[in-house]
This record gives sequence, structure tokens and C-alpha cells, in this order.
Amino acid sequence: MPSYAAPLRDMRFVLHEVLSLSDRKDLPGFADLTPDVIDAILEEAAKLASEVLQPLNRAGDLEGCRLENGVVRTPKGFKEAFKQYTEGGWVGLSTDPDYGGQGLPHTLSIAVSEMMSSANMAFAMFPGLLRGAYAALSLHGTDAQKALYLPKLSSGQWAGTMNLTEPHCGTDLGLIKTKAEPQGDGTYKITGTKIFISAGDQDLTENIVHLVLARVAGAPAGVKGISLFVVPKVRVNRDGSLGTANGVTCVSLEQKMGIHGSPTCVLSYDGAVGELVGEADKGLRAMFTMMNEARLGVALQGLAMSEVSTQNAAAYARERLQGRSVSGTKAPDLPADPIIVHPDVRRMLMNGRVINEGGRAFLYWAVLKGDTAARSPDPKAREAAEDLLGLMTPVLKAYLTEKGFQTSVEAQQVLGGHGYIAEQGVEQFVRDSRIAMIYEGTNGIQALDLVGRKLAANGARALFAFFGLIDGFLAETKDDTELKPWTEGLAAARKDLDAATQWLMKNALANPDNAGAVALDYLEIMAVAALTYIWADLVRVAQAKLRAANQEKAFEDKAFYENKIATGRYFLARILPDTRSALAKLTEGAAPMLALDADAF
Amino acid sequence: MPSYAAPLRDMRFVLHEVLSLSDRKDLPGFADLTPDVIDAILEEAAKLASEVLQPLNRAGDLEGCRLENGVVRTPKGFKEAFKQYTEGGWVGLSTDPDYGGQGLPHTLSIAVSEMMSSANMAFAMFPGLLRGAYAALSLHGTDAQKALYLPKLSSGQWAGTMNLTEPHCGTDLGLIKTKAEPQGDGTYKITGTKIFISAGDQDLTENIVHLVLARVAGAPAGVKGISLFVVPKVRVNRDGSLGTANGVTCVSLEQKMGIHGSPTCVLSYDGAVGELVGEADKGLRAMFTMMNEARLGVALQGLAMSEVSTQNAAAYARERLQGRSVSGTKAPDLPADPIIVHPDVRRMLMNGRVINEGGRAFLYWAVLKGDTAARSPDPKAREAAEDLLGLMTPVLKAYLTEKGFQTSVEAQQVLGGHGYIAEQGVEQFVRDSRIAMIYEGTNGIQALDLVGRKLAANGARALFAFFGLIDGFLAETKDDTELKPWTEGLAAARKDLDAATQWLMKNALANPDNAGAVALDYLEIMAVAALTYIWADLVRVAQAKLRAANQEKAFEDKAFYENKIATGRYFLARILPDTRSALAKLTEGAAPMLALDADAF
Repeated sequence: MPSYAAPLRDMRFVLHEVLSLSDRKDLPGFADLTPDVIDAILEEAAKLASEVLQPLNRAGDLEGCRLENGVVRTPKGFKEAFKQYTEGGWVGLSTDPDYGGQGLPHTLSIAVSEMMSSANMAFAMFPGLLRGAYAALSLHGTDAQKALYLPKLSSGQWAGTMNLTEPHCGTDLGLIKTKAEPQGDGTYKITGTKIFISAGDQDLTENIVHLVLARVAGAPAGVKGISLFVVPKVRVNRDGSLGTANGVTCVSLEQKMGIHGSPTCVLSYDGAVGELVGEADKGLRAMFTMMNEARLGVALQGLAMSEVSTQNAAAYARERLQGRSVSGTKAPDLPADPIIVHPDVRRMLMNGRVINEGGRAFLYWAVLKGDTAARSPDPKAREAAEDLLGLMTPVLKAYLTEKGFQTSVEAQQVLGGHGYIAEQGVEQFVRDSRIAMIYEGTNGIQALDLVGRKLAANGARALFAFFGLIDGFLAETKDDTELKPWTEGLAAARKDLDAATQWLMKNALANPDNAGAVALDYLEIMAVAALTYIWADLVRVAQAKLRAANQEKAFEDKAFYENKIATGRYFLARILPDTRSALAKLTEGAAPMLALDADAF
Repeated sequence: MPSYAAPLRDMRFVLHEVLSLSDRKDLPGFADLTPDVIDAILEEAAKLASEVLQPLNRAGDLEGCRLENGVVRTPKGFKEAFKQYTEGGWVGLSTDPDYGGQGLPHTLSIAVSEMMSSANMAFAMFPGLLRGAYAALSLHGTDAQKALYLPKLSSGQWAGTMNLTEPHCGTDLGLIKTKAEPQGDGTYKITGTKIFISAGDQDLTENIVHLVLARVAGAPAGVKGISLFVVPKVRVNRDGSLGTANGVTCVSLEQKMGIHGSPTCVLSYDGAVGELVGEADKGLRAMFTMMNEARLGVALQGLAMSEVSTQNAAAYARERLQGRSVSGTKAPDLPADPIIVHPDVRRMLMNGRVINEGGRAFLYWAVLKGDTAARSPDPKAREAAEDLLGLMTPVLKAYLTEKGFQTSVEAQQVLGGHGYIAEQGVEQFVRDSRIAMIYEGTNGIQALDLVGRKLAANGARALFAFFGLIDGFLAETKDDTELKPWTEGLAAARKDLDAATQWLMKNALANPDNAGAVALDYLEIMAVAALTYIWADLVRVAQAKLRAANQEKAFEDKAFYENKIATGRYFLARILPDTRSALAKLTEGAAPMLALDADAF
């Protein structure tokens, strides 16, 4: 049976030693949060994840969700676990104290969410979607809507969903057909079919707050005529009490490859009463608030699945005896050496580890930009943080989900034939992690968002800021000889990113297909460049700790920092070179891809 | 629902125009086989695959196999389909006419097998394993064993299995515990537990010929004390009639990620009567006969899954309307363009296509080496063919299964959210194709076989032969300006393979861990080099056909050859650069992988 132990030491390293959360006096509220408080929260979350959610993971996969008389039943134990989750106050960890939340930084709650996703990705989607709905209403809702919905979402008494996709339209939201008819009283009647609605119905909460994209009669065609509506499953009275059922029904559940514990619903809206959220015809903009939040949430799923996959593969590799090390027997008393002695097994474990540790630091760093954008009193700092967050959101989503899947596949490979057997649990990680590359915008769409939107926005201000960050780091560390392999690696990655950017500027305008063709290559180069920056920083911190501790006799964390540096070295040896192939492919452009007629396929 | 149409035109291209099967007067029996006969066989096979096997594929996945009172029940329809398969003579296509076979080249039967695997991978495993048993008995059995078993295997009246793995031992066969006790009459009683036995029991054939690795009492420890036995499920009388049940029982079925239509059995041997195959204690050598055959069969599964995945993704991409081409609307009469206009979608389809066409030619080329090794009257030619086949077997197994899985994952990505839904069928391709990277020796083991065994054998004779092949091609085509991009690519790939080989020779002896650490990188470089050679050859043939046909007015195959060349160009642009990253990683060696203590994981 699979297991999960939260990587608390590494989380503390990132939060305290790298991001120095408690020292951020520039961010209101952060300084109150002492390291002790953070650690206590992390430890409680770790317990919930390992003791409550993880044991439900495989059972949830086997049992799945059922649709019974129009109501979705979640797997056995989910209801009780969700109760424990909400009663523990985990939903409202970072929500607004004005609406009952605890107002803690997202940079802390992302660590909590990571644990929940590692332990049980399907389960963690319920609170995850809820937070998306909270974010959209919080930013675009009226005061009345906020007062009505936010406290109940913040407590987890109600849940939330995002309703975008229809049978004929996924990526291309301009094709949306769901209608919204104004009733004259400020409300609308919503009619249409939405598919792929995660947590579209469930038996965990007494109400579900659907956020629905629809088209008001007479609205402009395409994406400029789409509005966002809030449509509760059960109608809500002015005083917040529940009224009658609204006209929205789950008509079927999808049978899918994984995340069986999360119901993927077809929702039928038949004159369901909803209210406009934000301005009419500006629904896409409001939805993107949720989307950006959700994309970071999906990036997190990639990281979380990579972490739990690595843990289970490592546990197997330490125990499984098979063959002898080619460089000499390592366990002479045993009939064979544990397979962790074999370099190729170690390679797969290190591939996971370097993504877990580097990806964690990268993602938390980005979420801290989000906290800065939301909290900093300095408008310049807010803008700079928002720029970097916007630039890196598609990079994180695509790269971490790709790598999360890859780690789960390699973890399965470590187990050999046993990895293919359901009982071992690792094949579930493969099936579950696969969806993260697809939903909230496929990874191809993320790459288009990066290349087509984020790069060029505001005169490429965000990209320049990123280059500036690298240059600043290189200038600051130019005399640090110990760090040299990493600063040289960073300079090399920067050079490749620069070359890719130059190529793109020259060729994408001349032929827009070039942008689409190489977007994923470009995204990979940027991801590797960002990770090189992150790894250089992690190593710098670790080296400084080792130097400072040199005098101490019993330095219990010595191995931790040494391993961090060794893992950083692995990054340079085996991840950084990925830019070489990517750049070579990128400079070939669209022509080789599009040479065949469409009907040749 | 997924579909499959055999790529007959491309198969004919490889068999007739590239490998020129019917012109191989040096190989006895080949010249009798006219292109018309080959085409008729291919067309019949295509019908069986598309009309009989493919429709059972998804149902077989959903229903799976059941163990009922000690007997395995295959999914509905499998029994009838197997009857049709055997009655059509498909099992004995390439078996020895002395034992009832048709004696046709394996180079032809591999094309037939490809169709069956594309249509229904789980089903095709039954005849696949049967052929492995046939090969082992045919090469290592006594005349009496051959007379008893081969005709029944050749007709498909009986089936076969390979029994290697035990609960505590997979890759490391030296740990095998299954015992063989001599009975004094030439037979042995076999006792032990074997796991992961594909088709270990079924209801398709009246008997099953198990080939079992076991240890005779007093045999040397480790792999030098392992013998191979033939153990029929039902004992066989001297006259070939069936006797009483032998002491072998299927005690359970594994629940696994995919290939649900193929039962993966735990077999318990309790004093089952068997006979030695080949010499005592030399069982591993005999088993490797099956293994090599089986490894090519698994490589074929990678190719087959890549082909069917690409077909289904392409069909979806041509139909699904979403968004507009960035280089201008392509379908103004429709609400959106079909997604095949988007370069990133095209990239994924081309990734599949370039592996399907290049991988097919590569694999069939290797199988023709096998036919040459088996049939050529010239001992030099036999040796040369065997060398190249031996060298390329692990390369084909690892690379084509890796790419087959990758294509299925990308096909799923083309379908977006719909790719995650079971009904569409593509997620089954992902789950099914995944096993091919694991069984018959994980891909990591293939790489060790290449680097640790095949490279060095006979003073690296096979490797030199491969370099010679490339050099010969380059010399022969040095004035062919039209082919220049490919010959330049081939020279570049050769250079990278040479550099990788030099590094390995220098560093693997000094530290054997270096060989294990970079074996997969090396394998990838060799695979890409081999595919560059293959693609250069395919393009050369296509260019020659176009030149020759220049005079003809209506040249109906024009598009076929032009597409072949365009696909070859895609190979140069987007697969060949993979060697750059691989070489950079390879030269980092084992140190970064092994820097951490095993207990740091």
C-alpha cells in the first residue's frame, strides 16, 4: 500500500530559510506569523494529510463516485474527512478575516494544499475549487454577493465550482451557447449544458456555488459577449438561509482515467436563477481570476504527485533486493542488493527529487509574488510581483504538471512489473497526475498564453524583470566561487532563453504559426531558466548555512544542506541540458510541422 | 469510439520498396513470395484486425479477465476471435512447414502482428506468447519434444507462456527458487510460485505449454544453476493426445493498470511434471532465445500503440472545431477551424507519425536481419545479420516502447479533456502501452544489455558494423544533393554516437557505475542515430520514386512520397536534436546520480 509523509523539513527550508516569510516586514500580517506558528500549522496539516486523507486515496479510486437519483455520492469516508477538514479551519486558512477567514499568507496555505494533494489529489479538488469560487466572488462580486457567499465558502459550509466547458467548446470559449435571460429583477435565468464540471455535485456540503459562463441574449458574438453568473445549487434567501432547489441537475458522471474520487459532472441548467458577477459581457476577465488561481492549483497538483510518487518509489527501491551493484556488492549479508544501488534507479529517484525540491521553491516563490501583489502597500512592488506571477503562471502549470506526470511514470518504472499492479498504488498516481496536463487549459494552451499574451504584455515588462532578476543575482554572487557551477549554469540558461526570445521576436511576427509551433519549446526553456535561478538560490542558502555552522560541533542539519547542494548539482548535470535540444528544435519553427496537408493524416 | 485502419500503403512501402522482400534471391523462399501474395496476406490481416479484433478492444478492457473455480475466463468474444485467428492460419504464418507452418518470412509476419497489436494489444499477446514458446522449443527442444509440441503450437491448438518471475525475483533471475526434482524417468517434478505470467491460463486453447525456469536440486547458485523446463497444463501422452491435469494452477489474477484483456496470472506449480529443454543449468541461455524474440514483440507493441494512437488523435483533430488558425481562418464556413490547423496539435500528430513510419521501417529492417540470420546460406551474412539484430534488439525494445507510450500520451493531449474520458478509448492506449516499457526487461535493463553486453561482444564487432553501415551509406550518397539534409543529419548523429562511445570506453572501465548511469542516454543516442540512417534511406527511396515518375502524368502516389520526405524533414528538425541533450547528460556520468546516501531518500 502506498504511503505519504509530508516533506516538512523541506517546506520549512523554503518558507523560513529561502523566502523568510516571517521577516517580510514589507507585507502586512507576515511578521505576526512566527516560524513556530508556521511550523505548528504545517505539522497539523501533515497529520490530517497522512492520517485522514491518504488512507482514503486508494479506496476512493476503487470505489469512485456514483450518481444516485440525481445526487452524486462521494466515496466512503470522504464526507467525514471533509467535515474534519472544514472543522479544522483549513478552508479559510488564507481567506479574508472580514468573512470569517484566518487571513494567513497564501504562501503558507500552498504548503498545506500541497500536502492534501499529495495525500489524496481527488479529495483535495473539493476545497481547491471552492477557493477558486471564493477568489472570483471576492474580486468581482458585489458587496451583497460577498456578504451572502464568502462566509459560507470560507467555512467550507458551501462549496464552489467553475462552469466553462460545453460539449462543443472547451478551449474556445467564444463558442459558448448557454443562455442567460434577464428577469427584470436583477436576476437571470440560465439554460444550457456544461460538461467536465469537477465537483459539480457532491454530498459533502449543503450548497454548491456554481460560477457559470453564459451569454445574455443580444450580446456580441464570441468571447466579448460572455458574462459570469453565480448560480447556487440551492437558492439562497436574502438572510443567507437556504431556499428551494435551483434548476441545475447533474445528469451524468464521466467515466475517466483517474481522479475517480472527484466527480466530473455533466450539469444541466434549466432556467436556474443566477446573478451577474462583475460587468455583463466581461465574464471572461472575471473567469480568468479564477483560472489563474486554478492554474497555480494545478501546478501544485503536478508538484504534489511528483513528491508522493518519489516517496513511494524510494521506499520500494530501498527494500526491493535485486541484483548486485556493478561497482561492488553493497549488502553482502543479503541475497541481493537493494535496487537503490543501481544508478538508473537512482537517476529516476533524483529526477523526482530535483523537481520536488526545485519545483516547490519555484511555486512557493511565485505564490509569494501573489501575496505581495495582494498585500504590499507599495504600488511598484505590487506591479512587479504581479508581472512575474503572470509570466510564470503558465510556465508553472505546464512544466510542473508535465514533470509531475513524468515522475509518476518513472516511479512506476522503479517498481518494475509491480508498478503496473493496482495494489501498489503508483499506477494510480500516473492516472491521477495525467489530468493536470490537460485541465485548466492544456499545456499547449499555457504555452500560447505565455508566448502570445504574457511575453508581449506592457512592452515585455515582465520578461525584462525576469532577466533583471537573473542579472541581479549574477552580479550579487559574482565573487562567490563556491557557487560558481550554478552561476555559470544560470548564465548559460539565460543565454539560451535570450536566444529563444530573439528568435521568437524575429520570426513570430513574420509568421504567427511560428509562435504556436515553438511555444512549448520556449516554455520549457523558460522553465529551466527559472529553475536554474531557483536552484542557484537554494544552493546559495545551503552553502551559507554550512559555512555558518562550521564551528558547531553537532550540526544536525548538515546532511540536509549537503544533500540540497548535491541535488542542485544533479539539476545542473541532468535538467539544465534540456534547453539544448529545446533551442535546436525551436529554431526550426513551424515549417516542418505544417508541411503536410491536413487531410494527409 | 476508437477505430483502426491498417497502414497498408506504408507497410507495402517498407516491405516492397525499401526492403525489397521479393527480390531477396539470397534468402531461400523469399523470391517465391511475390508482391501480390504479400499484399493479399496484408489485406486479409487488415480485415481481421479492423473487423474482428478492434471491436473487442474496449469491451475487453472494460470486462477484463476473471478467475472462476481455478479457470481464467477471457472477455466475451475473445474465444470466437481466437478461433477465427487460428483457423485463418495466422499463428503458423512463419513457423516451420515441417511442423505445419507456412514458413513465410518473419519480416512479413511482423506486419501482420503489428496490425493485430494495434487493433487489440491484449488479445494479440496470446499468439505472441505462443510464438515465443514455439521459438524456444524449436531451437532447444529434442526431436521428440518438437514433434509433440510444435505442430499444436503452430496451429494455435495449444498456446504457450514464459515463466520467469517469482515474487522475490524479477530482473535478478539468479534468485529463482522454483525447484525441479528428477524422477529418474527423464522427467522432473516442478514446485514453486511464478508471478506475472501473461496468458498463464485462459479458455482459448485446450492446452497451454508453459516454459518454466527452475533449479534442479544441487545446481550451482545464481544464474548458472537455472534450467528450462516444458510443463504442459494438461499432461500429454506419447501420441500427442491429452492426459490428466498437471499440477499447475492459476491461483490469482493481478488487477492492473491496463491490458485487461490479457490475464496476468500467479501460477502455483505443485509437483507438476515437466521435461528439461536444452541442457541442465543452461536454462537462461535457452530462455534468452525467447526473450530476444519477445523483446522484438514488445518493441512492436510500442510501434503498434503509437500507430493506433496517432490515427485516433488525427481523426479527432480533423473533426473537432475549436479556435481559429493564428495564420488566418482556414474554415470560414464553420463556427471554428478544426484543431488540426494549430501547430501544436500538428506537432503532436507529427511526433507520432515520424515514429510510426520511421519505427516501422527500423523494426522491419531488424526483423529482416533475423530472417537473414536464420535463412542465409552464407555464414558471413548470417553472422553480420545476427550482430546487428543483437545490437538493435534492446534499442528497439526500449526506444519504441518509450515513444509508443509518448505518442499515446500526446494523442490523449490532442483530445484535451475528452482524452481523459474512457469512452473515447485513447486513455486505454495510454494504460495499455505503459506496460511495454516494463516487461520483458525494463527499458533500463535493455540499456544495460546494450551497454554491458551487446557493445563489447566480439570486440565490438556489431558496433563497428553499424558504423560501417552508416559510412557506406554516406559514401554511396555523397553526390546526392537532394538527400543532403539527411546525410548531413546522419553524419551529425554518427558524430554524437561516436562521442558517446568514446566517453563510455574511457569512463565505464574506470568506474562501472558510469556505464549503468548513462546507459539509457547512450541507448537514446544510438536509437536516434539508427533512425536517422533509416529515415535517410526512406527519403532516398521516396526521392528516387518521384524522380522516376516525373514523366508520368497521373502519378497517384505523388503525395505519398512527398509526405514521406516532409515527414523525414520533421525527423531532422525535431527528433534528431534529442542527441544534444542526451550527450550533454551522458558526459556527466554517474557522480551526480550517486552523490546522496541511499538513506537520504
